Amino acid sequence: MMRTGFQRVARLVHHKALPRNPHLLPKLHQASAFGSSTDSLVARFCPEKTDLKDYALPNASWCPDMLSLYQEFLEKTKSGRWIKLPSFKSNREHIQGLKLPSGLVTASDKQDWRIFTRCILLEGQGYEYVIFFHPSEKKSVCLFQPGPYLEGAPGFAHGGSLAAMMDETFSKTAYLAGEGLFTLSLNIRFKNLIPVGSLAVLDIQVEKIEDQKLHMSCIAQSRDKQTVYAKCSGVFLQMQLEEDPPQ
Amino acid sequence: MMRTGFQRVARLVHHKALPRNPHLLPKLHQASAFGSSTDSLVARFCPEKTDLKDYALPNASWCPDMLSLYQEFLEKTKSGRWIKLPSFKSNREHIQGLKLPSGLVTASDKQDWRIFTRCILLEGQGYEYVIFFHPSEKKSVCLFQPGPYLEGAPGFAHGGSLAAMMDETFSKTAYLAGEGLFTLSLNIRFKNLIPVGSLAVLDIQVEKIEDQKLHMSCIAQSRDKQTVYAKCSGVFLQMQLEEDPPQ
Repeated sequence: MMRTGFQRVARLVHHKALPRNPHLLPKLHQASAFGSSTDSLVARFCPEKTDLKDYALPNASWCPDMLSLYQEFLEKTKSGRWIKLPSFKSNREHIQGLKLPSGLVTASDKQDWRIFTRCILLEGQGYEYVIFFHPSEKKSVCLFQPGPYLEGAPGFAHGGSLAAMMDETFSKTAYLAGEGLFTLSLNIRFKNLIPVGSLAVLDIQVEKIEDQKLHMSCIAQSRDKQTVYAKCSGVFLQMQLEEDPPQ
Repeated sequence: MMRTGFQRVARLVHHKALPRNPHLLPKLHQASAFGSSTDSLVARFCPEKTDLKDYALPNASWCPDMLSLYQEFLEKTKSGRWIKLPSFKSNREHIQGLKLPSGLVTASDKQDWRIFTRCILLEGQGYEYVIFFHPSEKKSVCLFQPGPYLEGAPGFAHGGSLAAMMDETFSKTAYLAGEGLFTLSLNIRFKNLIPVGSLAVLDIQVEKIEDQKLHMSCIAQSRDKQTVYAKCSGVFLQMQLEEDPPQ
């Protein structure tokens, strides 16, 4: 049931069939659709007090470049223009208190669910990354250091691991900048390989929001901008999440 | 040195600057470039005897759909038209005895290197997949079952995990079909989400080989083809690997 329900919802949305099948779709409040302020989205996303472990914090595996650029951005958060996003083990923890689109039933909570980019919890072996978000300019920076479990060609990060990192950074930016929820497309051009253990800096920008779609761009490069690793554009579908009624 | 060397090689190749900078490039034997037969590539890639663990074998986590389609394709390998590709923990093991392009130095072997799509070794938690290749028709089928560590939206596979699976299946197909080595571009359109624990079938086809580039397409869908999860096109750069001289 879960599978069919979700797929019908997703397919309808993708085929722009929203008006004809309202019973399957998330309840959209047209007057206020996509009207949640960035401030309120950020406040929900970055709880001041939480018992959840934040994985976007420095550890012994971070290379000096990653660590010093992290400190630079952390300094910038003091002015309030930039925000450091926490990174929990599962997206379930990020959207606590919110309902997924109606018609969807999420799978049970009994398994050890992990967001893909936190699938490897061993420090330094998999994904090391932290995302900073600039609400007023609708842009993000992701500091990404691939570990040896993300290998493709010997000694270099797999193209797919960078694709996933771009998708994930797009995803968090799209949600906070305009309630973008689902990836519709990714278009990636690879230019150079990223050596395992080194820093790649991803600069993400929301280019425009039109017809319930967020159009975004990303460039991944070395810290000194002398080497471009990849360029990517992505489109995300807006979908407003409702608050769960109190239990 | 490794980093600069590799990036220069990769950048030159990407910018079609091969003729002007031959000293940095892999030694291409123009007369025979990209002339290795598919048979010899397959023979090297699928050793009849090896001590390496093959991760593309059924285990208790495989869903009934995955298991029965695996058996179907395994049956087809008996005629010799289809080949089941082994899947080792690292690409280093797949290219044993071959040299990477000159100018590149691979990182040390001391770490626990893993190809990204085998980054999680716990059965059923991460990537479960097996690739079958059809040499004469230059096409592949990948049976892919995402586990709970590959989550994006609650209960569903992260778009990035599917992007990586497509890139990896393209990569193996490109190598065997025409010595395709590096991903130049990926263009993905997502249609529906894949429920965690269920089977997605990826059909990959080499569309054409032109100007040292392999153009490939992929459709990921449910076994009954009623639900399309995503469509993707990819371009890979051909580059012939030389045999390592015997030690």
